[in-house]
Amino acid sequence: MAAPVALIQGASRGLGLEFCKHILKYKSPAAVLATCRNPDAAAELRGLAGQHSDRLTVFKLDVNLEEDIRAAAERVRDNFGRLDLLINSSAVLHPSGRGETSLRDVTAQGVISTLTTNAVGPLVMARYFAPLLQKGSGGFGRQPAEKTERHGGIIVNITAKVGSIGDNGLGGWYSYRMSKAALNMATRNIAIELGRSRPKVVCVSLHPGTVNTDLSRPYHKNVPKDKLFSTEHSVSCLMSIINTLSIEKTGKAYSWDGTELPW
Amino acid sequence: MAAPVALIQGASRGLGLEFCKHILKYKSPAAVLATCRNPDAAAELRGLAGQHSDRLTVFKLDVNLEEDIRAAAERVRDNFGRLDLLINSSAVLHPSGRGETSLRDVTAQGVISTLTTNAVGPLVMARYFAPLLQKGSGGFGRQPAEKTERHGGIIVNITAKVGSIGDNGLGGWYSYRMSKAALNMATRNIAIELGRSRPKVVCVSLHPGTVNTDLSRPYHKNVPKDKLFSTEHSVSCLMSIINTLSIEKTGKAYSWDGTELPW
Repeated sequence: MAAPVALIQGASRGLGLEFCKHILKYKSPAAVLATCRNPDAAAELRGLAGQHSDRLTVFKLDVNLEEDIRAAAERVRDNFGRLDLLINSSAVLHPSGRGETSLRDVTAQGVISTLTTNAVGPLVMARYFAPLLQKGSGGFGRQPAEKTERHGGIIVNITAKVGSIGDNGLGGWYSYRMSKAALNMATRNIAIELGRSRPKVVCVSLHPGTVNTDLSRPYHKNVPKDKLFSTEHSVSCLMSIINTLSIEKTGKAYSWDGTELPW
Repeated sequence: MAAPVALIQGASRGLGLEFCKHILKYKSPAAVLATCRNPDAAAELRGLAGQHSDRLTVFKLDVNLEEDIRAAAERVRDNFGRLDLLINSSAVLHPSGRGETSLRDVTAQGVISTLTTNAVGPLVMARYFAPLLQKGSGGFGRQPAEKTERHGGIIVNITAKVGSIGDNGLGGWYSYRMSKAALNMATRNIAIELGRSRPKVVCVSLHPGTVNTDLSRPYHKNVPKDKLFSTEHSVSCLMSIINTLSIEKTGKAYSWDGTELPW
């Protein structure tokens, strides 16, 4: 069987970069396709590609540009013919870098921009990569005994606990919360549609915990030390979940510890 | 006490127009401010204004234009000084008029446009009208005995059952479903923030049922006759709910029959 193929969208830093490292280290001989908006500026990712030139390919993809996504899917189709794992990792808290603390901070443009990157981008990724995921060889996750229940590819949308409407007790962060709620709906809808295909494609939302990344940096002083995860720890937890995914678990949101998140 | 003031956003037709008629008929002497994108083309609404020139004012507001919303809020502030009820009624199914039946129909622009009208618009309305709703005289809903628990104004966001992530068993309609999930998050967030103010402002999402409007018209042939509501019936049900709203019920989504919708 050919080596599994994983595509990590938003791989220049943070969780996305860490997913690349993890798969290179623990999922040999899987191939990793790492995308980011500006590969020239992604020094660490390019360094990694230098060390793993046989397994890691970096290419430009701005999740806000549908044409970039279409072109990337064609490239993957031509070079690999299929995809086993797609992780949508890129996200913004708000264009200003700060979540809204009250309605007074809300601007239409800020909300639209955040929704576009965090919710529309991952959906459009699914739209163009679905045919390749349907040709996936099931190289990630856990396959059941029953052949008709086996999956080809897996889509992971990185969500956030603050994107849970039912769990929301604090308010604030209008743009980010709305974008993750919309993304969770996309996850659910994609799971339903691609759960009908043969082979099936699994789609879940995963919450990484509060991770030491640029997105959350302005808020680290409010996070207890043991609750602020390193990217290594978070990705290790999330890959443990991904390794157990099957069609039974599709269409839901899970936290880093494997518990199901309410919508 | 001065007459209550209600603003119906998206009042040229469908549910919005019916809310105007209902309040004029059953909520005398409440004043109605009816907004729509193009008052010149809203013949029925203008006819209604001709009959009720003492109580109904029509003005231009495109929910996609933040400047329109800001200007409308200033006008209401200058003329009334407060607001008791805001109903965000305008919505699109998709710019094409048809919801996506599969991922293949998804376009970034279609999703962004739908999210902007259905989710960002109502949020930006809340952002500019919140100060006036906080000055509301509590003319709609039901006031509890406890003074500190009384509300000034009420915000109603018209949602849809298909915007419930947990209830989603069919898939499809990506743009519309995502926009209503994002709107429900906005409702929850607004309710939390404005539930802390004095006086409090109530905010809920209401599902009108499947209503005989232009939005749902392409799908009427699939709806059993007794499940396709007239705008009169739907608005009558929704106003019954609005008449019982208090701060206890804020931050939730309710169906036309008063039952709570899952997120």
